[in-house]
Amino acid sequence: MLLERVNTPADIKQFSLPDLHRLAEEIRQFIIDSVTKTGGHFAPNLGVVELTIALHYIFDSPSDKIIWDVGHQSYVHKILTGRKEGFQHLRMYKGMSGFPKRSESEHDMFDTGHASTSISAALGMAIGRDLKGEKNQVIAVIGDGAMTGGMAFEALNHAGHIKKDMLVILNDNEMSISPNVGAISNYLMKLRTDPYYSRAKADIQHLLNKIPTIGDKVLKTLERVKDSLKYLMVSGMLFEEIGFTYLGPIDGHDLPSLIESLKQAKQTKGPVLLHVLTKKGKGYASAEDAPEKFHAVSPPKGPTAVKSPAPSYASIFANTMIRLAETDERVVAVTPAMLSGSGLNAFYKQFPDRCYDVGIAEQHAATLCAGLACSGLKPVLAIYSTFLQRAYDQMIHDICIQNLPVVFAVDRAGLVGPDGETHQGAFDIAYMRAIPNIQIMMPKDENELQHMLYTALRQSGPVAVRYPRADGLGVRLDQELKEIPMGKAEIIRDGKELALLALGPMVELAKQTAERLEAEGIHPMVVNMRFVKPLDRELLLDLAKRRMGIVTLEEASVAGGMGSAVLEFYAQQGITDMNVHLLGLPDQFIEHGSRDALLDSIGLNVDGIAEVVKMQWPKRKKRA
Amino acid sequence: MLLERVNTPADIKQFSLPDLHRLAEEIRQFIIDSVTKTGGHFAPNLGVVELTIALHYIFDSPSDKIIWDVGHQSYVHKILTGRKEGFQHLRMYKGMSGFPKRSESEHDMFDTGHASTSISAALGMAIGRDLKGEKNQVIAVIGDGAMTGGMAFEALNHAGHIKKDMLVILNDNEMSISPNVGAISNYLMKLRTDPYYSRAKADIQHLLNKIPTIGDKVLKTLERVKDSLKYLMVSGMLFEEIGFTYLGPIDGHDLPSLIESLKQAKQTKGPVLLHVLTKKGKGYASAEDAPEKFHAVSPPKGPTAVKSPAPSYASIFANTMIRLAETDERVVAVTPAMLSGSGLNAFYKQFPDRCYDVGIAEQHAATLCAGLACSGLKPVLAIYSTFLQRAYDQMIHDICIQNLPVVFAVDRAGLVGPDGETHQGAFDIAYMRAIPNIQIMMPKDENELQHMLYTALRQSGPVAVRYPRADGLGVRLDQELKEIPMGKAEIIRDGKELALLALGPMVELAKQTAERLEAEGIHPMVVNMRFVKPLDRELLLDLAKRRMGIVTLEEASVAGGMGSAVLEFYAQQGITDMNVHLLGLPDQFIEHGSRDALLDSIGLNVDGIAEVVKMQWPKRKKRA
Repeated sequence: MLLERVNTPADIKQFSLPDLHRLAEEIRQFIIDSVTKTGGHFAPNLGVVELTIALHYIFDSPSDKIIWDVGHQSYVHKILTGRKEGFQHLRMYKGMSGFPKRSESEHDMFDTGHASTSISAALGMAIGRDLKGEKNQVIAVIGDGAMTGGMAFEALNHAGHIKKDMLVILNDNEMSISPNVGAISNYLMKLRTDPYYSRAKADIQHLLNKIPTIGDKVLKTLERVKDSLKYLMVSGMLFEEIGFTYLGPIDGHDLPSLIESLKQAKQTKGPVLLHVLTKKGKGYASAEDAPEKFHAVSPPKGPTAVKSPAPSYASIFANTMIRLAETDERVVAVTPAMLSGSGLNAFYKQFPDRCYDVGIAEQHAATLCAGLACSGLKPVLAIYSTFLQRAYDQMIHDICIQNLPVVFAVDRAGLVGPDGETHQGAFDIAYMRAIPNIQIMMPKDENELQHMLYTALRQSGPVAVRYPRADGLGVRLDQELKEIPMGKAEIIRDGKELALLALGPMVELAKQTAERLEAEGIHPMVVNMRFVKPLDRELLLDLAKRRMGIVTLEEASVAGGMGSAVLEFYAQQGITDMNVHLLGLPDQFIEHGSRDALLDSIGLNVDGIAEVVKMQWPKRKKRA
Repeated sequence: MLLERVNTPADIKQFSLPDLHRLAEEIRQFIIDSVTKTGGHFAPNLGVVELTIALHYIFDSPSDKIIWDVGHQSYVHKILTGRKEGFQHLRMYKGMSGFPKRSESEHDMFDTGHASTSISAALGMAIGRDLKGEKNQVIAVIGDGAMTGGMAFEALNHAGHIKKDMLVILNDNEMSISPNVGAISNYLMKLRTDPYYSRAKADIQHLLNKIPTIGDKVLKTLERVKDSLKYLMVSGMLFEEIGFTYLGPIDGHDLPSLIESLKQAKQTKGPVLLHVLTKKGKGYASAEDAPEKFHAVSPPKGPTAVKSPAPSYASIFANTMIRLAETDERVVAVTPAMLSGSGLNAFYKQFPDRCYDVGIAEQHAATLCAGLACSGLKPVLAIYSTFLQRAYDQMIHDICIQNLPVVFAVDRAGLVGPDGETHQGAFDIAYMRAIPNIQIMMPKDENELQHMLYTALRQSGPVAVRYPRADGLGVRLDQELKEIPMGKAEIIRDGKELALLALGPMVELAKQTAERLEAEGIHPMVVNMRFVKPLDRELLLDLAKRRMGIVTLEEASVAGGMGSAVLEFYAQQGITDMNVHLLGLPDQFIEHGSRDALLDSIGLNVDGIAEVVKMQWPKRKKRA
């Protein structure tokens, strides 16, 4: 095995071309063997085996800086930089991250996770290099999907202007996570398929020489034509227009042409865009055929595992959307490249005119919804909590100021598990709660999610419904959708002296905690808060009147979270002397691991909650 | 006067061309007379007089929907839609907004203020129109500066793909608020200046016909060449490539050609981009010569007005940046199109290699800083609070997760005055405070701002220094910069029973309140909090020990603000029984008006604070 001898990029520098080919095969097999066991991103990594080898063959990491946009395609890079062992615990709690991490290796130049950041980061490093008089290369590797994100364009626009030496590798696999949408995608398709772009050059040069000179009068025009034809012969006009030297497209699985092109790019001054065509899932037949399905794989279930009987929150969202759209033709769905992730595929099939996947373009997605709402439609923006951060200004400026009826279906709110700190839905309550006009809710189970969506669509202003990346509880789904009174909490069980004010999945934990504590003579009240904004003022006043202690429970940052809203409410009411304890996500970035393992690690489980209740309990007693 | 007869767009439909010309002159004079008196955006509006007249002449507002990107160029539109009277109180408290407002007129289709939103909103309205089977036109008017914002690109990419009928008018005045940067800007320059693009069409057609057919062998290539030449003759290749029909460039002050082109655009199917060249400040010589200076004008000072002796916070920021950069060559500045607004012009002159105006591109600006920090530099991102909302995800994902030493100089934090609700810096504390790793501070005066910047640049992780859009207090500026201990508040005056915990400009108000209350025997303690994160825990514990009541004071949203952080701290410490009253910005969007008028309107002034203190005071006494 060649791979056994490879522990740093330096180890492949003396490899022959046949050896590099063998290495590619070994790495491909390593990924197939390893990731099908542990789970993880699959097809994207099989697609960049040759590209990554060629990069480390031609460039000198870490002095040359390779930045992996999104980062879910960095496995080959991890293998080549001494982290083969890490794959045994890939994306597991305390195990190796599925994304580049500066803290993990000197070869990881920049932490990524969200799309479209690499060109900005690379440009920053190129400027830094020049200011410090250093000589290294800077390379951003970005997919065609990520290229449609607005910030990638902002970065290209700046880089094309200031002309720093840098290389952008456009890893074009004709899809991001799902098939790409947008005009740029069509343009890339043209580059890929039009033989003129890549082959006609010699013919045209020949032809140009044959154009007769017709006289002084048109000479100047002729010169222009010749110049223009020359310009035209350069593929990637669009990239050339904004200041990049365009090279390609080349076959991203052909090592010799990769090596040749990277050498050429290395010698070219100014910003260069190398267009590389790769196939997601390359070398694994079923992944090549269905790359979307094999974008990421889950570990195989053990023999004792049973299929969860409960549908996921996302699938309930998706089904409910169809029901709602069937009875109200104003309902439309918008999602930024999350058609599959959000579960909207079926909706799209049934209502192709009323469902817009806008590509990786969160900002546009939100303001598009604002425009739709201005037209009297009822747009629902299906987006993950972590990606909604990208549309924060649009949420405030284009939706909430105008108080437009846009429903934010905030999926993956709370801890998301193996994707780790870049993807945790930790901040949405804090960042949304300060915005006037918006109402924020979260269901205790999948049945309530249906009713909340129904309710949200009946409001005249913006509403966010947040729900976790999890399966539901397996509760019965009501056939009839009903309206939940806005700002009303639900008392799950009454109790004494202490109330557990829980949000979303925390309600079930609160119930279980209360059940367990019964035997110990502790009877906390359990409340399904439902609403972060507006809060159930009546309930809170009643708790104050009854001199109840309070523990708030939420899968969201404690700083600025729902518990914080409860404190603010009592302060504003001039009610002091409340004993409120806040449980939620602590003030630290939470790494990858299973959602349960992570919740355990921060004490957001029955044990942890019971402990807090018991701590609070005698204190209350003493004070009462 | 023709203008007297114009109260709705319908009134100009029957005008002759000479009448339209006269109307343009009258409107120009109206703006000059009016805005030089009240203050407001000046040069941008003088630049679109003819364009706006032509739009309302050809299209039928409000059934046809005109969306003004940014919106500071909407004055002519306001004049033509029955709001001439409003200019007497333009941007004043309770007066007419300087931006389009749906609540103000049926002709204002979309509230704007921030750049680059119009194409997304227009596309949403185009989709809505088609779904509802309506027939109206949708028009976005966007400047060349705003066109460089990533979300404009996201919207173009989507619109070019789904081919809805819509018109994007690129109002190209060769600058946004300050001269444009970026490759797109260079590209537009080429379109403007290359005669080939606009004139060679006929010549080339002639030439094409003369190219002999050489034989079957190269026939296919020849056809390709002909196609390509045809393609090439269409200007605006870049826009054509992404699916738009490009028309122009045309002279935006020439009414007949505007009318002609708008008619053509109206008849063209699919998305159309009309490139219109205008001159900012057109018709007012000094504004034409210095459009940046005349972007917005202030009302003339009355005879009794004296020039404020105190420098603005922004100017202190700018001066301090130069001092810091002189002694530390790692200090670099980045700003998204706010070179002038942030005061960095002088810095740029002195350190052109260490200052990057990236254009309207907040997302890229933040991640560029992350890349610079990775290179060992010390980037300072100069940005307004309201625009930092655009870079929220990058702040979290690219800077704070990696704990990179980026300094956010958050200007215009708090109320900004006449720009109104789209520009208030209300949310930054709430949205930043939940992010791990970041430290957040705000100076009580301009002298402390210098020290805070110095201190921020000595940290190893991200720091935000927020400061108001205001003049300083006129205090003495220390010659030597000194480090402020992180997380240490400053006791301004000790007191009894009640502490005013004030942030930033609120410290001065708290001092004045305490001075006034002295006569009444009330002696509140006054604290300059300095830090929102980390809080001064020692101080807060001491206040608890002394059983002091607390009033928190901040020019930021109460929801999730500094006061909320104080409440969270006590809750986490298990300290109940604290009497904390929160003062700050209420849960509503705050409109335009002078900053003082707005602060008065929400009781954030000495009277308001004194009242709260007196309310709290006897209560404390009774409880004690």
